[in-house]
Amino acid sequence: MVDVVSIAEKFSLFQEHWQPRIIGELNGQHVKLARLKGEFVWHQHEEEDELFLVIKGQLKMKLENRELILNEGEMCIIPRGVLHLPVADEEVQVLLFEPKATVNTGTEEGDRTVQARWI
Amino acid sequence: MVDVVSIAEKFSLFQEHWQPRIIGELNGQHVKLARLKGEFVWHQHEEEDELFLVIKGQLKMKLENRELILNEGEMCIIPRGVLHLPVADEEVQVLLFEPKATVNTGTEEGDRTVQARWI
Repeated sequence: MVDVVSIAEKFSLFQEHWQPRIIGELNGQHVKLARLKGEFVWHQHEEEDELFLVIKGQLKMKLENRELILNEGEMCIIPRGVLHLPVADEEVQVLLFEPKATVNTGTEEGDRTVQARWI
Repeated sequence: MVDVVSIAEKFSLFQEHWQPRIIGELNGQHVKLARLKGEFVWHQHEEEDELFLVIKGQLKMKLENRELILNEGEMCIIPRGVLHLPVADEEVQVLLFEPKATVNTGTEEGDRTVQARWI
């Protein structure tokens, strides 16, 4: 069944931070939405490249030797094996595109690790 | 090299309709931008699911027995094997996620077939 999915409507269905929700699946990949606020944990993904697209707000993406600032309508792709730390001084809404197998904390499983679920 | 990619800036670099430009690559998939205007050709993709996210404007997606209307911030995923016809009464800007191997006209190669290129 092909359906229209509204990003804004999906965001209205959850408020939790750092708990990605799945809104689509294609070619073994998931499309996810997440609300971010504060600092996450440094991590990397062994076998997954990860796309962050900012829907609302401003995201700081710290890398080992520099940091990127992403505003609304801007995206970056973090290749597998690259350490990164997403930081959101104010709440940010992001769309993620990544393989279904991706764990939010990558190889750093711990308190912040959550299983993404469909919304 | 991880970089910030601005969707608006990338759109400012081309004006042609129905000629997708590649702005990112991850996990064997491409992120593309396209300007659509008018009616495309009925087609399907044998082995590729295709995501359309409307960045600006309104997209009509005709399917065999119904049609979807997608406004800004709305998306749909057309699974492999599903015949579809994108129609844009006025110009629409869309973001596409699909496997690198995807041909814009699917199995209907012809005049409208183009090779997507990086921008």
